[in-house]
This record gives sequence, C-alpha cells and structure tokens, in this order.
Amino acid sequence: MPATTTATTNHQIRLAARPVGLPKPTDWQATAEAVREPADGGVLVQVLALSLDPAMRGWMNEGRSYIRPVALGEVMRAGGVGRVVASGSAAFAVGDVVAGNFGVQEYWAADAAQLPKSGLYKIDLRLGSATQWLNVLGMPGMTAYFGLLDVGQPQPGNTVVVSGAAGAVGQTVGQLAKIKGCRVVGIAGGPAKCEWVVRELGFDACIDYKLAAPQGAASNAAPAGATRWDAVREGLKQHCPNGVDVYFDNVGVPILDAVLARINRKARIVICGAVAHYNATDGIPGPKNYMSLLVNRARMEGMVVFDYAERFPQAVAELAGYLKDGRIKSREDVVPGGIAAFPAALLKLFAGENFGKLVLRVADE
Amino acid sequence: MPATTTATTNHQIRLAARPVGLPKPTDWQATAEAVREPADGGVLVQVLALSLDPAMRGWMNEGRSYIRPVALGEVMRAGGVGRVVASGSAAFAVGDVVAGNFGVQEYWAADAAQLPKSGLYKIDLRLGSATQWLNVLGMPGMTAYFGLLDVGQPQPGNTVVVSGAAGAVGQTVGQLAKIKGCRVVGIAGGPAKCEWVVRELGFDACIDYKLAAPQGAASNAAPAGATRWDAVREGLKQHCPNGVDVYFDNVGVPILDAVLARINRKARIVICGAVAHYNATDGIPGPKNYMSLLVNRARMEGMVVFDYAERFPQAVAELAGYLKDGRIKSREDVVPGGIAAFPAALLKLFAGENFGKLVLRVADE
Repeated sequence: MPATTTATTNHQIRLAARPVGLPKPTDWQATAEAVREPADGGVLVQVLALSLDPAMRGWMNEGRSYIRPVALGEVMRAGGVGRVVASGSAAFAVGDVVAGNFGVQEYWAADAAQLPKSGLYKIDLRLGSATQWLNVLGMPGMTAYFGLLDVGQPQPGNTVVVSGAAGAVGQTVGQLAKIKGCRVVGIAGGPAKCEWVVRELGFDACIDYKLAAPQGAASNAAPAGATRWDAVREGLKQHCPNGVDVYFDNVGVPILDAVLARINRKARIVICGAVAHYNATDGIPGPKNYMSLLVNRARMEGMVVFDYAERFPQAVAELAGYLKDGRIKSREDVVPGGIAAFPAALLKLFAGENFGKLVLRVADE
Repeated sequence: MPATTTATTNHQIRLAARPVGLPKPTDWQATAEAVREPADGGVLVQVLALSLDPAMRGWMNEGRSYIRPVALGEVMRAGGVGRVVASGSAAFAVGDVVAGNFGVQEYWAADAAQLPKSGLYKIDLRLGSATQWLNVLGMPGMTAYFGLLDVGQPQPGNTVVVSGAAGAVGQTVGQLAKIKGCRVVGIAGGPAKCEWVVRELGFDACIDYKLAAPQGAASNAAPAGATRWDAVREGLKQHCPNGVDVYFDNVGVPILDAVLARINRKARIVICGAVAHYNATDGIPGPKNYMSLLVNRARMEGMVVFDYAERFPQAVAELAGYLKDGRIKSREDVVPGGIAAFPAALLKLFAGENFGKLVLRVADE
C-alpha cells in the first residue's frame, strides 16, 4: 500500500473515568500508539480538525441514550475532517479531504470491510472550508436544517426564537429561518455574541441572557432583585410582540420556561439540547410551564440528527448554496494545540466561552 | 310563549372569590332569582344534570388560558343536560332533551339572538343515557376521541398508557385504544378502580399509583423507603415490557416523569390535563425527564377539545356505535343533592374520590 505518512506515532485521548459533573483532567487518559497501517483495501486518514460538541458530554455517561456510551478506555468519540494519507480503496485517493467519525486522535484507519459502515465521505473544499464542513456543512448545520425545517416547520411571518444563537447549531438555525421568511430572535450570552448575531447574521434581535435588563430598555439599571432570567422574559416580551411560533432549544430550563410562557397557538418547540444541564449532578430541572403546551395546543418534540442521514446531501447542497451566495455566514472558534488541548477545550462549551462552532485544530491543512 | 315550568325560582352557584388552593365554601355564593322567561323565539331549559370536571378549577383562576376565566359574581360555568320547558324556537320543542353550557343553576334561558351561538344541541337518549351524554358522548368522550386518535395517533400493536384511567376521559381513552388494536395499561388510584378498568373495561393491566409495590409482584411488601411513585415505575416496567408508544396524560408530574423514562422512539405524549396540580399554590412542577423526548425523538403535545367541535358528530356516531355494541362501557359517579351540593361534589375530583365521570344530579329526568 502506498503511504505518504511521515509520523509513526498516533496520539490519542481516551475516556478514563465517567465524569461526575464537569469532566476533570483525570477523566481522560493520553495514549500514544504506532500509526496503524490499514490492510489491503483500507485507508489511513490524518486528522486535520475535530468537532467539539455539547453532545459529547452525554456520550461519556453510562446508560441508554440515542447512541451507545463511549466505553472506558476507548478513544473518545469525535467527528472530524482529515486527509487520506494512504489508501488501497478505489473510493478514496491519497490527498482526498474526508469527514468521518475519527475520534480524538491524530490518525484513523479502516480496513476494507470497515469502510462502508464507517460513515467516511469525501468533502469538497470548494463548497466550504474544512472548519465549515464541521459547522454549517457538518453535523451542526444538519441539525439546524432538519430540526428547524422538519420539526419546527416554520411558516413565513412566524416568529422563531433560538437559544445558543451564536453557537454552532443556533447560528445556522437563525439564518435559515430568516431565509424562510421568519422574524428571528436569538438568545446568547454577552454583548459581543448578541451584536454579532444581529449585525453579521441578520437576526432581528438577540437577547443577552447574562443581562439583568433587556437590550434597548429605557433604563439599563437592573431593578432590585432582577435576575438574568428576568432579562430573558423581558427581552421575549419586547422582541416577540406577537408571541413565539417556533422555539429551537439548545440550552434547557429556565430559558425554556421563559419561552413556554410566550408561545402561540400550535407553536412548535424543537428540543435539540440542554447544554445548561449536561454536567448536572442532581438531575435536569423540568420545564414547569409545560402546561402552556395544553393551553396553546402546542408541541415539544425531540430530534436526533443521525435520523436524517439519507437526506444530508440535500441539506448540504442547499446550505452550500447559501454559503456561496453569502446568505449564510459561519463562525468557527478554532482552538490550537492538537490532541493534547482537547480536555481543556471541551470545557469552553459548558462555560459558554466558545464564540461560534468550537473546533480543535489537530494538524495544518 | 307556552311554558310547562312550574318552579318560579332558579337556584344558582356563583363564583364569589378566586380560590387559593382547593376551593373553599366561601369561594362560592348561592343565589336565587326568578326563572327568566325568554323573549319570543328563545328557549327555557330545566337543567337535569351537570358535568363536573377538573378543568373547572382552571376556569376559576384569573389570567390568560384557552378559555376566559369565570368572572367574580358570575354563575359558575358548567356543561350539562336538560329538558326544554318553554320554547318559541322552531329548532327546539318543549320536551326535547338538550345539552349545553348551562352553568351551575337550575334553569337556563336564551333569547332567539343568543341561541345560535349558545352551543345548545338536541341529544338522542336512544344513543345513550343523559349521564352518558355528559361522559362518553359528551366532552370527556370527545376529549378522549380526538386526543387519542388525532394527537396520540395509536397504531395497532402500540402500547398505550393512560392516567386517570377510571376517570371520565381515561375510561374512554383506554377502551378506544383497545378497539384500535393497542395494548392498554391504565394508571388509577386504588384496587377498586384498577380492578374495574381491567375486568369491566378490558384494559390489559392497571397500575395502582397508591400502592407501594406493583400489582402481581412476587412480594407485596413495600421495600423500605418505597413511595407510591416507585409503584408506578415498577408497574410500567412490568406491564409495558416493550416500552410506551402513546401516553395520554390526565394527571401531570411525577407520573408523567415515570412514563417519560419508558417511552419508545417517536412516542406521542398527549397533554390533556394535570389534575394533580390544579390546586397548587406554588406552581406546577416540570417533568424533569423531558430530555427523554430528545433521546427518543418523541413529542409531547397539548390538546383542547373545543378545537374539534366541527367533528363532534363524527365522534359521537362512532362512540355511540361502540356503546350500543357493548364494546365501550361507561361509568358515571352521580352525586345527588342538586345545585347546593356542587361545592362539595367538585372537591371529589381533586381527592381522586370519584369513580367514573363525576355528574351532579340537578333534577329528576
């Protein structure tokens, strides 16, 4: 098998213990092994960049979920973009840029028998950069596309609210909803993210959940006893004067409750995530305003992006068109430092510190 | 206008104060006024029986809901069955048995102009008794029919769980689900209700939420620290070995959480009520297991029966057919004592003391 790889060592991050609360350094184990040359008909991929996602926290837990947990001692699951450095497969040539479930490691190998089920696919850098293929053209974009359009079913003129608005999924949800003719209100943490969402992405408004007074309120002084959740409630009142038709939820309670209090008849709430609670050690709080679903004949529905895999090409084609036209912009927060930087980088997600889709740079393109 | 009425006094129950928690005697005011003879073209109805429903508690609260609150000083809203005792309308003859929104009073009158919008309609006692017209052929039956079939969308072979199984809505939900080819598991309070639901109505099983150990468990001794909610969790595990596809919720948290923990992929949860919480003074608790909707790509949707008014005749025809065939049975808990008995009778609902659809007998048929 021809090989252009020069490195002989593959650095990896494995799950060493199931975290309680936020993952600690000791929950991880750094390992190194020889780069595995795949058998005839297989491929070897050098990982260029990895996608860091809130969902990763769930994969570290034991128990039944929409996907099996990462086993203790296993290389941590992660999607990424890489370059084929050795290939005996007719489907992939050395130099091809590919996306796949590589895990948190520098090299990924698959034998001929593993390839068809591996989910490896070639990507076209003319449609978007490698990091955009982990963002709007990758799983976050697919999640936004099918969650918003299939589950949220926005109609022109609807008011769409999205939390985590500056995050990977939220940024595409909002821009796509604008393209579909909706009024779009984001919820994000801090003035920089809110300003970017409105000025650069064209959202109609963005509510800063870290503020104690709503944006544009006559007085910026927080009333006595005000909390940042009051800011969300006031912001929704101000920016959604006609109520909320679609809510795309990435964060969970209590923002979910604030939105439930303002939904319209037949509103659709897309449950995509609850990043505020993935590290909770005492359970996730329930939305106490859920009876608003009854009053408003509304629904709350969960979605998992993998269910739509057969339709990813359709979504990629549409989103790549918007990227090319400039109708959709994307922002990635690229963390340098390679595999070793993974444990610390992941924590940025749960502190709300990432600004845009969080990506770990593993090797230069 | 010809009149056969002999009574000249109309006794009423009016809302005197907005209750905090369970309605107290002082929240009501008993009044009496002269029976109002309707103007030409109107009708006068003698009320025979009134429907007592958990939803009444919500109507007593101030604030936005799916229906306007009952005003202070207003006759309490209630649906009922009555007999026309005076009529100048071509649509109704003296002696006709009718259903309508009569309120908690002995006589109801409408002028010609009010009649078309009053919701008054003739009922056919050959299809069901007067109390059945307040149960399976009335609002509870309509709620069961459209909530289960339109929102729950049960498929043959599905497992359907319904709480408040011996109540007005629950009894029809379960029997209808059996007719549609489902496995049906009820949740009710106490062995008498559970036995009736299984033996008389043909449910596959019924979980007694008041028990600390599941029905049919090897040992009936409650394990140390067991609560009645453990009984629900264990019962669901035992009686829904293939998970839950449809849950028809009449009661709310924590039973809703126990079911959420066992739903299947693409499950449908119909939010019809939350009788456990209508008198809560510190807010309704939220379902902390709501993220099960995400994991299972499931949905939770609210419904209000009035939205289906145009299709009531279709549902009545189908349900009356099942009643006639004996495929659906009904049970009403008829409280005697007339209008004066209303305040105390209503409380039976919130104590779970009613066995079957709660009806107040106002006059002999």
